Amino acid sequence: MTSLGIDIGGTKISVIIGHPKKGKIIAKEKFLLPIESPEKTIERIQLTYEKLLKQCKITADEIDIVAIGCPGSCDYTSGRAINFPNMPLWRGYDIKKAFQKFIKHKPIIFDNDANCAAMAEKYFGTGKKISDFLYITVSTGVGAGLIINNKLYRGISLDAAEFGHMTIVKNGEQCGCGKKGCLEAYASGTSLARRAGVKDVPELLKEMRKGNTHAQLVFDEGIHALAIGIGNTLQLLNLEAVIIGGGVSTIGESYFQKIRKAAKEYTWPRPYDHCTIMQTSLLDDVVDYGTMALALSF
Amino acid sequence: MTSLGIDIGGTKISVIIGHPKKGKIIAKEKFLLPIESPEKTIERIQLTYEKLLKQCKITADEIDIVAIGCPGSCDYTSGRAINFPNMPLWRGYDIKKAFQKFIKHKPIIFDNDANCAAMAEKYFGTGKKISDFLYITVSTGVGAGLIINNKLYRGISLDAAEFGHMTIVKNGEQCGCGKKGCLEAYASGTSLARRAGVKDVPELLKEMRKGNTHAQLVFDEGIHALAIGIGNTLQLLNLEAVIIGGGVSTIGESYFQKIRKAAKEYTWPRPYDHCTIMQTSLLDDVVDYGTMALALSF
Repeated sequence: MTSLGIDIGGTKISVIIGHPKKGKIIAKEKFLLPIESPEKTIERIQLTYEKLLKQCKITADEIDIVAIGCPGSCDYTSGRAINFPNMPLWRGYDIKKAFQKFIKHKPIIFDNDANCAAMAEKYFGTGKKISDFLYITVSTGVGAGLIINNKLYRGISLDAAEFGHMTIVKNGEQCGCGKKGCLEAYASGTSLARRAGVKDVPELLKEMRKGNTHAQLVFDEGIHALAIGIGNTLQLLNLEAVIIGGGVSTIGESYFQKIRKAAKEYTWPRPYDHCTIMQTSLLDDVVDYGTMALALSF
Repeated sequence: MTSLGIDIGGTKISVIIGHPKKGKIIAKEKFLLPIESPEKTIERIQLTYEKLLKQCKITADEIDIVAIGCPGSCDYTSGRAINFPNMPLWRGYDIKKAFQKFIKHKPIIFDNDANCAAMAEKYFGTGKKISDFLYITVSTGVGAGLIINNKLYRGISLDAAEFGHMTIVKNGEQCGCGKKGCLEAYASGTSLARRAGVKDVPELLKEMRKGNTHAQLVFDEGIHALAIGIGNTLQLLNLEAVIIGGGVSTIGESYFQKIRKAAKEYTWPRPYDHCTIMQTSLLDDVVDYGTMALALSF
């Protein structure tokens, strides 16, 4: 089985050709995503796909399935984007139809990128041995995928694991989703930068190193928002692990130490002590692996 | 199968003899629980049990199993109380041993009262037809039991569903559990009364009717704390139902209307619209039915 995987992210797009059954990425190419029409983005994906086919010396017919990770909610049946919070131009766009123009007679399947990442951990990562865990991605937004009894938990209307949109502060910061005081409005990369008045997270870290106390306060509030969300999830679900990925998590071990320390404040000892809060073992490729996991689950 | 069921509550104790397979309570007797030693309480339970046997015209030997709902955490194997937050004298008390003194050669099993109530809904109540729901009890404290895929979800160290101890306000009100800003510290009957400076919830309601604005504010904060917890649970789990029981919920439909309205503020439309927030169909007997469900699950 050979799969074409596309990770449509809030700031970049990654295209892979993989062998899901072997858990192996054969070829990968990514590009930054300027805010432009979905049509132009799809054209760019098509070019990348054709380039990868050549690179792998395979024909289009050898691709068995196309699996797409989306940065928001999709109608999984029709293949239409419902709401990608950080990509407003995509609202209602028929992604499946766009792909069908250049990929004929192959199944094209979709899932939320955080669900894909959670499945990637379950099939190929540290999550393999863990029956119940939450995968969190902290990047442009804050998304999550929940594994319960070794399976993705989707909820009654396929809207589960909206961890980033749990209310952390009553009547707090306005969130892009329309609610107030959401976790994402404090902890995402975009929110951290916006609240600190800087360009991005690397600049925020630079300001902190220079001793900018406002930058430090904003960063700490982001950590605590995430920790309250994790603490509350552990109180409710008493999970074995919380696995964190996404751009912001690449800050590294110091980020994880701060989260662990803060999460302890919001959790009882037993749910806390029985849970490991760790970085994704699949790092930057987690959603790419997720498209292969999605292909396997088809 | 005939079961003896004991609901050890924060303020009262209920003893039943039931037919779990028929879902029928044969005889029930309850008494108020003054703060006294566990030994004296067990003596009182023994007297009630003997009275019920006579009333039902059965012998001790006809009881097949003893199922006990506890107001806190228990070591389910040893039968020892770990922590009953509102009954400090019971800490570490060997409940199983105490019962074994007058009930010989019968299995004696335990669970948290909120877990019992959730199972009661699943086996005998509205929850029968619902695969995934949260049962919440709002009374002396705030407890919960979580049903996922038609089964009680216990978590890695049997500590799941501590809904009442999710953090609602960072550095908020001191909670009896040791954490700060827990849902229970705002929404339980005890917290509502304490914060309003009145004796109990009926007196709080009387003050509200008299136009006491502080009482009204405390009540509304309790509703919103509960609603944030429910909203966050729905964002995370996208459940089909939230079922509420316990003394405070007997305020009735006006209480439920306020919770539904407030929960909408903290939830996205789809998780909210697909969920029903309702009162327990088993009312005051919910934990009694829970002891029968526990007996069936043995």
